Amino acid sequence: MTNPLCNSDSRLPPLMAFARELADLAAVETMAGFRQPLSVANKQGDAGFDPVTLADQQAEAVMREKITATWPEHGFLGEESGSSLRDGEFCWVIDPIDGTRAFISGLPLWGTLIALAERGEPVLGLADQPYLGERYLGGPDGSVCVQSDGELPLHTRACESLADAIMMTTDPSMFGTAAEQKAFARVQSAVRMARFGGDCYAYMMLARGHIDLVIEADLEPYDIQALIPIVRGAGGVISNWGGGSAANGGQVIAAGSAALHEQALELLASGVD
Amino acid sequence: MTNPLCNSDSRLPPLMAFARELADLAAVETMAGFRQPLSVANKQGDAGFDPVTLADQQAEAVMREKITATWPEHGFLGEESGSSLRDGEFCWVIDPIDGTRAFISGLPLWGTLIALAERGEPVLGLADQPYLGERYLGGPDGSVCVQSDGELPLHTRACESLADAIMMTTDPSMFGTAAEQKAFARVQSAVRMARFGGDCYAYMMLARGHIDLVIEADLEPYDIQALIPIVRGAGGVISNWGGGSAANGGQVIAAGSAALHEQALELLASGVD
Repeated sequence: MTNPLCNSDSRLPPLMAFARELADLAAVETMAGFRQPLSVANKQGDAGFDPVTLADQQAEAVMREKITATWPEHGFLGEESGSSLRDGEFCWVIDPIDGTRAFISGLPLWGTLIALAERGEPVLGLADQPYLGERYLGGPDGSVCVQSDGELPLHTRACESLADAIMMTTDPSMFGTAAEQKAFARVQSAVRMARFGGDCYAYMMLARGHIDLVIEADLEPYDIQALIPIVRGAGGVISNWGGGSAANGGQVIAAGSAALHEQALELLASGVD
Repeated sequence: MTNPLCNSDSRLPPLMAFARELADLAAVETMAGFRQPLSVANKQGDAGFDPVTLADQQAEAVMREKITATWPEHGFLGEESGSSLRDGEFCWVIDPIDGTRAFISGLPLWGTLIALAERGEPVLGLADQPYLGERYLGGPDGSVCVQSDGELPLHTRACESLADAIMMTTDPSMFGTAAEQKAFARVQSAVRMARFGGDCYAYMMLARGHIDLVIEADLEPYDIQALIPIVRGAGGVISNWGGGSAANGGQVIAAGSAALHEQALELLASGVD
């Protein structure tokens, strides 16, 4: 089996094919719950509202079972069920439903995120939106969107200046400290347009060349690892606000071009935690 | 031709059928521009960024031409091309692409809004999302979503308390005055969850029973008129923040139940302009 996204590393094509099998399994569970009356648990108790659906938990369970059965030597990190064997060579990093708030609101902007990390850094990424029938794949040699009319190669667009950029962010409340809020506000007032309500789908639109910048904070590794190879494979730049690896989550910035990434990093510098 | 949404007023079924023809015409124009490199004009000049696409203008032009040719005695009000004969018995009120920012960002949450108003109040509403293949229709006798697997009757859900409610709003920046911002913040802190990035699609999710509350401000008549019969036909309540007609736009609140509407109106009262 060949895969144009990861030909330069002969170990990867069967692993990407496997990631697609995982996404197929997860989609059965997530689609069964989407736009249905949901059992919404509350992970934060009375302190706040963090919806976790039965679909979320079941999708992770079927993927974890398949991974453990097929690659018993691989590690696993999931949003719902925790981690195992994280120190091995390969680790699967999974968020069965990224954007649970979009999910429970009926909006088709959530995604199933599946990353394969090699010693902590993601080398393959898959982001699936089964309601839209869009599956975004990224590897060392490029990114594509698999959709009903075929495979669309993904390329970020050439926006070189913040003044021309369209930015997306999931929610202003994700910036928890005053320094973060000020840093974000500086970028917000520098760009042409900012839009909230992105979730993982914002990174997909960046890889597809429709928007130019995504700035977020307070992310977990499983919120971002799958998106890193997709953004990079499409020609984008993704890092933490300090310019280092985004693989651990936290404060993340993705840009369609290196010039835009550099301009935004400067404005964010004082907000780096 | 019959139409279960408007049987109680025998004048309306042919007009609803006509609205659906308009939506078909508009979808050809909007879909030709969606996710394509766009010519983005700037209506506000240097003062701000208000994207208007060629698709927007062309979609309105084909609908206006069809209306004028078929119902020369009817009025017209459109976002792009202004109004004519607004004082007649019937007036078509149209926004070819509501949510142009979602549109140019690649997000399938924009909609083509078509209302038929009778002496200023909308009696039929149509909201079309052609990328998703979802067309929401509302009239005096109910609301449905026409989608690939048939017609889904629309019913808001029974959420009776703000503490249990999911709220959506397009953007926090739409609240322009300090009084508006404070009023909105009061509701935001009373609800279970708030999500930004709704555009017209928020009202469709309310009619579908996935969310409970939409609160917005600074709307034009063509931003809201089509959504009024859809929300009402699904069992929801929609008004301005003072409890009067929302048909003129401005500050708008839509709720899935009368109890929720009443609770939110109380918290918004001091922000009424």
